[in-house]
Amino acid sequence: MTNQRVLTGITTTGTPHLGNYVGAIRPAIAASRQTDTDTFYFLADFHALIKCQDPEALNQSTREIAATWLALGLDIDRSVFYRQSDIAEIPELMWILTCVCAKGLMNRAHAYKAAVDANLAEQEDADKAITMGLFSYPVLMAADILMFNANKVPVGKDQIQHVEMARDIAARFNHIYCKKAPLLALPDYQVDDNVAVLQGLDGRKMSKSYNNTIPLFLTEKQLQKHINKIKTNLLEPGEPKDPDSSTVFQIWQAFASPEQTSDMRQAFADGIGWGDAKKQLFALINEEIGDARERYHDLLARPDDIEAILQQGADKARAISKPLLEKIRTATGIRRLS
Amino acid sequence: MTNQRVLTGITTTGTPHLGNYVGAIRPAIAASRQTDTDTFYFLADFHALIKCQDPEALNQSTREIAATWLALGLDIDRSVFYRQSDIAEIPELMWILTCVCAKGLMNRAHAYKAAVDANLAEQEDADKAITMGLFSYPVLMAADILMFNANKVPVGKDQIQHVEMARDIAARFNHIYCKKAPLLALPDYQVDDNVAVLQGLDGRKMSKSYNNTIPLFLTEKQLQKHINKIKTNLLEPGEPKDPDSSTVFQIWQAFASPEQTSDMRQAFADGIGWGDAKKQLFALINEEIGDARERYHDLLARPDDIEAILQQGADKARAISKPLLEKIRTATGIRRLS
Repeated sequence: MTNQRVLTGITTTGTPHLGNYVGAIRPAIAASRQTDTDTFYFLADFHALIKCQDPEALNQSTREIAATWLALGLDIDRSVFYRQSDIAEIPELMWILTCVCAKGLMNRAHAYKAAVDANLAEQEDADKAITMGLFSYPVLMAADILMFNANKVPVGKDQIQHVEMARDIAARFNHIYCKKAPLLALPDYQVDDNVAVLQGLDGRKMSKSYNNTIPLFLTEKQLQKHINKIKTNLLEPGEPKDPDSSTVFQIWQAFASPEQTSDMRQAFADGIGWGDAKKQLFALINEEIGDARERYHDLLARPDDIEAILQQGADKARAISKPLLEKIRTATGIRRLS
Repeated sequence: MTNQRVLTGITTTGTPHLGNYVGAIRPAIAASRQTDTDTFYFLADFHALIKCQDPEALNQSTREIAATWLALGLDIDRSVFYRQSDIAEIPELMWILTCVCAKGLMNRAHAYKAAVDANLAEQEDADKAITMGLFSYPVLMAADILMFNANKVPVGKDQIQHVEMARDIAARFNHIYCKKAPLLALPDYQVDDNVAVLQGLDGRKMSKSYNNTIPLFLTEKQLQKHINKIKTNLLEPGEPKDPDSSTVFQIWQAFASPEQTSDMRQAFADGIGWGDAKKQLFALINEEIGDARERYHDLLARPDDIEAILQQGADKARAISKPLLEKIRTATGIRRLS
């Protein structure tokens, strides 16, 4: 029996922060070490083009994200780690899928509909400033998934629909071209209800769009500084504090062992001062990511080595995508004459 | 000074007929022999996927169309003759262009709007049975054109808008990514107002959709049979006939020299019989295409040789598309890290 294939895309915009780490990167890297699944991780730079038209920022983000995942210990022997744009088969498959995908399906995509609603609310043209990239992005995502016959796609709730669309498109392709021996696996989404959503400096969800993040690989000094900025109430040292309404405690939990968590809960009840709690939080986080931070900066200084790793990953990925695309082409009639 | 680049796509559906030959193939092949332009001809099999979901038919059509153009003397030394799907850079460029193309532009495409209008007239959902292939086809066509920095695109009137869209998309890309040194040439359409539109068996425009065509490479016997089926009036031999309302004469003109045309005009006035006129028409056509027909059937029996020619063409095409795509990728930030 072959292993389940699990595929994760990482859009190459921005710099990873603690929220990305806790909610997505850490569990994905743990998954890369499992032996009962085949894992695929890719830098989704074609997707990044939809929202980022700054070439330097896109390239910088690609470098930082690759270095981040590698520094944190992604198992590149066991998993396939590649850059989307290195796999020429993906855009080609995208076009083939485009031809079997109903336009009506894209009309119903949440992200597109939200953009339309925002335009209408402003009494603008429904499609104002909406690119074909935003509109047809679920077809590219379908190609990403189907190109590797992925069975499981771990996603946030907002992405469930896109995996369902990939499934629809795959079924349609199989129905038209290869009913008897389906070429495309029907993917399932995988939503972890227990995924840790980290709070940001202001207590809302940590998110680049709220400008409330703590970047993952700050220097120790910067990290302590950011942690000191976490919003707290005005209670003095010695006054008992409520851990469950505290961002400091919420972030603590995401890094602490059960024992450490219960100790900190007690410390809150005992009236630990905010400054003290924040110092302990810094130490806890720093212990978990300190070594990775060194590896990260070391890697960033060696872009050739990152590139070589990505090329090895691309070779592994193409060993799967090339023969599958060949079969897909043949099924559609796009094939050599001899 | 570099030559102008002229690019022509040939959708690989159906079997070429006399109308295609007179209106498109013959003038294009003549153009391939000109020395003051660089000509590009490609088998548009990715486009064919939009309307043809029969793999055997698509493959058969690709073979027949390639053999037709070669048999008729396309100058493959002077021009670049390739199959679209052999150029992996095209779908990749398509995605990059997709990200700079406004959805509103596609909403305004004539072909899409006509499909929507037809649905609405039947009180159906506006996008019923419309695929993303039909909707986003102008972006693929833009990629076809811009990938080779084509300056001129000979098209029928119904395709003018698509070339204008390619121009819009190119300008948008240049504006975003390379204002100072534009990477993409802005293409112009080229409409030949004198393009010969051949009448079919029933007197309407010869077209597969009217089922009134005369396929180009019929056997002599079948060709004569088809010509005999051309609709005429009931005038007897000896009665003067009006050449200008006659399909037989209209087709005659498309193959005859000015002298032969004026001779036939006289013969109509002198009351030539329909049977006689059709025999002469057969002989005229057969003289023009007889040799090519032999080469055609010879080529069809040697698919390896057609394939080898297409691969040579693909090599020539890729010598242009690869370095240009590399520059385009670099401009967008989709590039190697080292």
